[in-house]
Formats: sequence, C-alpha cells, structure tokens
Amino acid sequence: MKLLEDKILSDGVAVNEHILKVDSFINHQVDPELMQELGKEFASHFSGKGITKVATIESSGISPALMTALALNVPLVILKKQPSKILNQDCYQTVVTSYTKGTNYELTLSQKYISEEDHVLIIDDFLANGEAATGAVRLIRKSHATIAGIGILVEKSFEPGHDKLTQQGIEVYSLARIAKMGEGFVEFVKE
Amino acid sequence: MKLLEDKILSDGVAVNEHILKVDSFINHQVDPELMQELGKEFASHFSGKGITKVATIESSGISPALMTALALNVPLVILKKQPSKILNQDCYQTVVTSYTKGTNYELTLSQKYISEEDHVLIIDDFLANGEAATGAVRLIRKSHATIAGIGILVEKSFEPGHDKLTQQGIEVYSLARIAKMGEGFVEFVKE
Repeated sequence: MKLLEDKILSDGVAVNEHILKVDSFINHQVDPELMQELGKEFASHFSGKGITKVATIESSGISPALMTALALNVPLVILKKQPSKILNQDCYQTVVTSYTKGTNYELTLSQKYISEEDHVLIIDDFLANGEAATGAVRLIRKSHATIAGIGILVEKSFEPGHDKLTQQGIEVYSLARIAKMGEGFVEFVKE
Repeated sequence: MKLLEDKILSDGVAVNEHILKVDSFINHQVDPELMQELGKEFASHFSGKGITKVATIESSGISPALMTALALNVPLVILKKQPSKILNQDCYQTVVTSYTKGTNYELTLSQKYISEEDHVLIIDDFLANGEAATGAVRLIRKSHATIAGIGILVEKSFEPGHDKLTQQGIEVYSLARIAKMGEGFVEFVKE
C-alpha cells in the first residue's frame, strides 16, 4: 500500500538490517488519520468474508485493529499479555516466546469474547519471525473459532513469519512488505 | 454522558463496592462505535482549547484516546509501561505505584513526541486513586508541556483521584461518574 510505504520512507528510521523504527507514527506516537486509512484498507480487502471479530495483541496493534473493527462494524478483542500467576478457568492461555527480546509471555483470552461461531481477522503492527501471530492463531483456535486472515502493517519479508503462517493455510495481507533494509535505506517487495 | 452510563448499566458487572468489570466493551472486548462516540464527546468538550497532542497510558486507554485524537485532528502519544533496565537518555521516566495491584511500573515518554510547545489532553479509561493519571501529568510536565485537561471514561467519584487532580488546577471531565456501587448495582453522581 503506497500510503504506508511512503510514510515509512519519509518518517521511518532504518537503524540496521533488522531494526526499523516507526515509533513516530505507529508505536509511541500514533497518526490517527493514517490508522483510519489503514483500517479501511484492511476492511476493504477482507470484506465479504463473514468476519465477526477483529483480534489483536496488546498494545501496539490496538490502533490499526480498532480502526479495522470500526470499518467492518464488528467488535475488537484485545489478546492480553498477562502473567501466568492468575489461573482463570474462564480463560484460554498460550505462551509466546519472543526470540528478538529473549522473553516469554502468556497471552490470554477470555472464553466469553471469542467462540466457535466466530470468524476472526487478526491485525498486528509487525510480522517478522511470526511468534506473536502464531501465538494469536493458537489462542483463537483454542476457542474453536476460525481464522479469516491476518492483516499486518509492516512485514519483514526476509524473515520466516509470513511463510510459517501461509503454510498453515492462513492468508496474510501485509500493507508494507520489506524485502531488504540497512542503515538509512528500506527496499519494498515489488508486487 | 447518558450513552456510557446506559452501557455500564446494561453490560457492566459490579462485583462489589470497588470492582466494576467493563471488559465486554472497554478493556478486553472493545466496542469501536462506542469508542468513536466517546472520542467525539471528548473532542467536543475540549475543542477550542488549543490542544496539540492527546496522550494516554498503554494499554486500555488507547482506544478512546485514538478516537479523541482523530476527532481533534492531532497526534496520539502513548506513554509506555517499560522496565527501568533500559536507561535511555532521550526519554523522560517516572515511577507509578498502583495501590490496587500492589505494584510499581516505570512510565516512559520519548522527548521527541511531547515538547514545551505542546498543550496535552490526557485520556484514560478509569480514574480511582489517580496514581496513573498523576503519573502521566508528572511525566508530561517533565517535557515542560502544559496540560489541557484529563478525559476519563469511568470515574469512581468516591475515591480520591478526581480531587487530587482538580486540586492541582487540572480540569477532569469524566463521562460516567460513579457515586456508589456494590454487587449488582451502580449509582451515578447526579449532575
């Protein structure tokens, strides 16, 4: 999507071949109008697929996911990062390992908000190794809901996340696909 | 605001005199259309005050804050809960003590996103003892920005947060003000 690619080129900071800072418009400071446009784009792409819920992982996916849910006229469900000490029988849980950060966290979903009748679109800001997205898929499948697809703002296409998900038969729609980057430059996948 | 009060009465769950569960439309599952209406209400109330940024604390304030920022046509800045191990010279930090949860956390703001020229509206979901909101005020004042006011979805008016903030000369605009609650009932402050 040209709008997001242009924003990355103008306001993103490629630090090295692995780190792209987008905290001036996605992560720390958020551009609400941009998020509205990205949400409309996801809604348009996935329209007519019978989506009943949008889900995201707290917290940097919330802004685009909220705008997508608004455009699709369905509720948003936020998968919560919570410590495992609270064992709640009404919740599904799964452990997500972040190789990048070298940490684990529990992802939690109340059984009340996603059921076997739901068809869920997952929205997140970044896709690289795919640990968070596959964790979200695992968690939503525990509720016996079906996955309508995954919408991503920025995909590092040179990392394995995209393929891991599509190999499970899940459609991944990424608005900006980075083929290669390094200090001061970003190259997008040519469609 | 009648819209939010009615939603609390129909979908909120008052567990006891201190705990109100609103996770079906604010915290865990989010009602995007409701958030849009609440955002418009904050924008309307604080319009004409020269607000340059909306700020919130991650993560449950993000949805109403994003909608407020969209309606005011200004950026949203998310104050991040981050561990103190990363000492970053470009960040302001403050410690927030949560008496309810018995925990401390570091609240962090990059110096790039709020400056002395900003006039900031803080939006959050809950106001009770006011630890989070006063932490946000402290952090934003470190940047020498001014505070335009605080917009809250649900205020427990029987707890001291509201008074702590207004005594500092800060306007607090809460959309639902709870005078009293207990198992199965909620009473709002009569305006």
